[in-house]
This record gives sequence, structure tokens and C-alpha cells, in this order.
Amino acid sequence: MFVTIGERINTSRPAVREAVEKRDLAYIQDDVRRQQAAGATYVDVNAGARIGHEAEDMEWLIEVIQPVIEIPLCLDSPDPAVLEMAYGMVTQPPMINSISLEGERYETMLPFLQGKDVSVIALCMDDTGLPIGTDDVLARAKKLASGLEEAGIARERIYVDPLIQPISTDQTKGLMTLEAVRRVAQDLPGIHFTCGLSNISYGLPQRKIVNRAFLTLLMGVGLDGAILDPLDNAIMAVVKTTEMLLGQDEYCVGYLDGVRAGQIVA
Amino acid sequence: MFVTIGERINTSRPAVREAVEKRDLAYIQDDVRRQQAAGATYVDVNAGARIGHEAEDMEWLIEVIQPVIEIPLCLDSPDPAVLEMAYGMVTQPPMINSISLEGERYETMLPFLQGKDVSVIALCMDDTGLPIGTDDVLARAKKLASGLEEAGIARERIYVDPLIQPISTDQTKGLMTLEAVRRVAQDLPGIHFTCGLSNISYGLPQRKIVNRAFLTLLMGVGLDGAILDPLDNAIMAVVKTTEMLLGQDEYCVGYLDGVRAGQIVA
Repeated sequence: MFVTIGERINTSRPAVREAVEKRDLAYIQDDVRRQQAAGATYVDVNAGARIGHEAEDMEWLIEVIQPVIEIPLCLDSPDPAVLEMAYGMVTQPPMINSISLEGERYETMLPFLQGKDVSVIALCMDDTGLPIGTDDVLARAKKLASGLEEAGIARERIYVDPLIQPISTDQTKGLMTLEAVRRVAQDLPGIHFTCGLSNISYGLPQRKIVNRAFLTLLMGVGLDGAILDPLDNAIMAVVKTTEMLLGQDEYCVGYLDGVRAGQIVA
Repeated sequence: MFVTIGERINTSRPAVREAVEKRDLAYIQDDVRRQQAAGATYVDVNAGARIGHEAEDMEWLIEVIQPVIEIPLCLDSPDPAVLEMAYGMVTQPPMINSISLEGERYETMLPFLQGKDVSVIALCMDDTGLPIGTDDVLARAKKLASGLEEAGIARERIYVDPLIQPISTDQTKGLMTLEAVRRVAQDLPGIHFTCGLSNISYGLPQRKIVNRAFLTLLMGVGLDGAILDPLDNAIMAVVKTTEMLLGQDEYCVGYLDGVRAGQIVA
């Protein structure tokens, strides 16, 4: 089943930042309840935008979010101390967002992850920057998977992010990622994926139609997760419709539920 | 480039039937001009619905359509006599819709096609009915291609229709067709495709969203044509957006033109 990581609770979004500043728990709780109702698998929590307040904001957010939803959290921070605190608070195994091959991040995150009961997002980024081709994505995914598996994170708990890049700057970037996902899925059976979808449409008008079509193409080659806004009905409709078309929705139950809920509208 | 066969000029559509009955050439000419403007590659002409009038209706339609557009026609009839007459009228090499492996159609169409300057739609249908699996589609496509090539139709002028079947009756039907298109493209390099897209969503609500997602998936595995309504902006937006994402739209020119024309709206 597709893993939808709800991206909305992020203090870089002005409304969330304001709610966090005011300790407006009703706003946050309503938002995450709606994310769950819309089909989110995880709620991402990123408290990084108020410099100097990350730890306290993260703590408050987990306190107010966790009691009102049944789905687990995706703890989104580059700071192992913040993650360690958050990990101590959660009542269900969380996802960790994220590790990469960038020297400092890799060296600080790997010890934190060691032996923990978590899933983890593995970004195909290293100190040289974004991957420049399909082989590069594949090599980085393999390096990340082998390091994480050595640290005790099972293959099935690793979510590779191939790092989608804008099609507007290079027309081959779509194919590069599609082929990379296909090959990672083939060479690392059991591994999962996530992605930041909207990068594909950077610099183009009418971006959402590009994001939606690319999500369908990615799912066609094996991508089974994304960080996105679960309250965007059009993108969730694409997830459910494409799952059905790929034979992952017996008797079209998920699709028909989405139609009845008004989430899927042609 | 994606081949869009515009399906609108069909006397089974009430408005077209009425226009044909009244010999309302303005209606027909306006329609086909708009199909061309929207990006149709061929205009399909089907005059089969007024029983006993097919030949005269087809003749009239070609007379009124051909002078007002620059794109070629797709002559859509099961009757070789009607096709022979129509073939004698066209000023550009047409597409013929269609041949199949059904005994009578195959035996009558193959001699008609022999040595002619045409492209042809090859339906993966035989006397046993619809294909029941991927292997079946592949075997039928190969049989059709070899028969047509022996009759002098080059591989590059054959458009295989894998015969899309409803996902609502069998959740594997989407995967069956996707895998079939991938394998036909691999085993018969140079061949083209077409399809009747809307069959996928038969029996479901909000059908257009299913059709659009399936078109994107099909293009991802190599499908490069469809019979559809070029005046349906949402489906044409999917064609142009997906072409761009598959690296077939240098500098995103086709996509950006579609946005400027108001055809692509997120």
C-alpha cells in the first residue's frame, strides 16, 4: 500500500508557525485529524523554522498531535538530539526524516539510528550534490541501504528518496528518476520509496498537473510512497486511482471509497 | 510524437448523425478544424450508424472535411467497398480503422490493405473474443504484424490496439495491458500503438480520472497513440504533460504552448 507522509506540520508554513508560536493546539489537532481522515500513513513533524526553538516546538507538537491520531509520526529534523528526545516520546515506531550520504549528516544520523525501532528516509544526496544520472542514484541508494542494514535497520524499513529534479532545466530528469526507481526496486527487493514530488515541476506553470502525471509514472515503475499534502484531493485521487490501475485495490474498494468521500472527482 | 486519432466524427454520436442527415457541412467543418487546432494527428471518420447510408455518408464527410484541414483521415469502416471508395478520395495517406484476427474481418481486410499506402490499426481480437492475458495480447500482435508486413504494410505503419478491458470486472486487467504494451514494444521494435482508453473505466464512477491516469501509465511503458476526443482539454493536457515528463518535449515547448493555449490547466 502507498505510504503517504503528510507534509503539512512544518513550521516553515506561516499558518503552522503562527499556531506553534501561539501554542494553538486546536489548529494543529484539527489539521492532523484531517490528514489522517484523508489517508495519511504518517504525519511529518518539522519544527525547524523557529531558530533556537526546535526542541521545545517539537516536544509541544508531539504532545498535542499524538493523542488525537492513530497513525505514527515522521520525525523530521537534522539534529540527533531533537530526534532522540522525540523518539523517547512517541508511542508507535516512527519514521525518521532523514539520512543522506552527506558527510556530517551521515556521521551524526547513523549512530542515532543504530538498533532503533524506526523506519527511515534515505536521501540520495552526497557531498558532491544531487545525483547526475540513473547510475548515480542507484549507487547512492545501495550505499545507503548497506549502511543502514549494517546499523540494524531492515531493508523493509528503508524509504529511498531518489531526489526528483526539475524537468524544466533538463528534459532527461524525468526519465532519469523513473529508470532509477525501476532499478533500485529491482536490485534492492523489499526496499520502499518516498519522494518530494513537486521538485519535478519547479519553474513551470500549472505545476500540479505535472506533479500528478509524474506521480502516476513513478508508481508505474514501483514508487510506493511520497511526502505530500493529504488534504490535496487531486493528488490523493491520483494515488488511489493509480493503485487501482496497478492491481493493488481489490474490487476497487479504495477507489470507490474515495469517490464516495468526495476525494476523487474527475 | 504521440498520435492522437480524433474520435468525434462518428454518426453514432447524435449531434454528428443529425449534421450528416441534414448535410450540415458547417457543423462538421467547424468540428474538424477544432480537432486539428487541439492537436489531433488524424481525424477518424465513421459513417456506420445510418444503416444503408454508410457509403454516401462517408463520401460526403470526406468531401466536406478534407478541404478544411491539413491532417490526414482515419477511415473507420468494416466494409472494404466503403474503404476502397474512401481511399480513392483522400489526398494524403490515411490510417485504416481496422483489421483484427477475427476470421471474416481478417480475410476481407488483408486483400484491401495489400500494397496500399496506408497506416493501419490492428486490434488484438480474434474469433475467441478478447485477449485473456499478456501472452495472448503479445501473440495476437505478432500474428497481426507478420500478416500485415507480408501484405506490404511496413512495421512503422502498424498501430496495435491491445484492447483495454475494464478494471472494475478484474483488477488485473490494467497490469495485463501495461505489461502487454511493454512486451509488444520490446519484441516488435518500431511498431506503434493505439487504444480505446475509456474501456478501462467501464462500470466505475468518475471515469475520466481513471482514463487519464491509465493513459499516463500506458505512455510510461511505450504506448504512443490513442483514439480520443482532442477537444477534451484534460486528456490532451495529460498527453502533453506526460510526453514532457518522458523526455519527448525539448525545452518543454509543447507543454508551455498547451498552457498558453489554455489547454493545460492544473
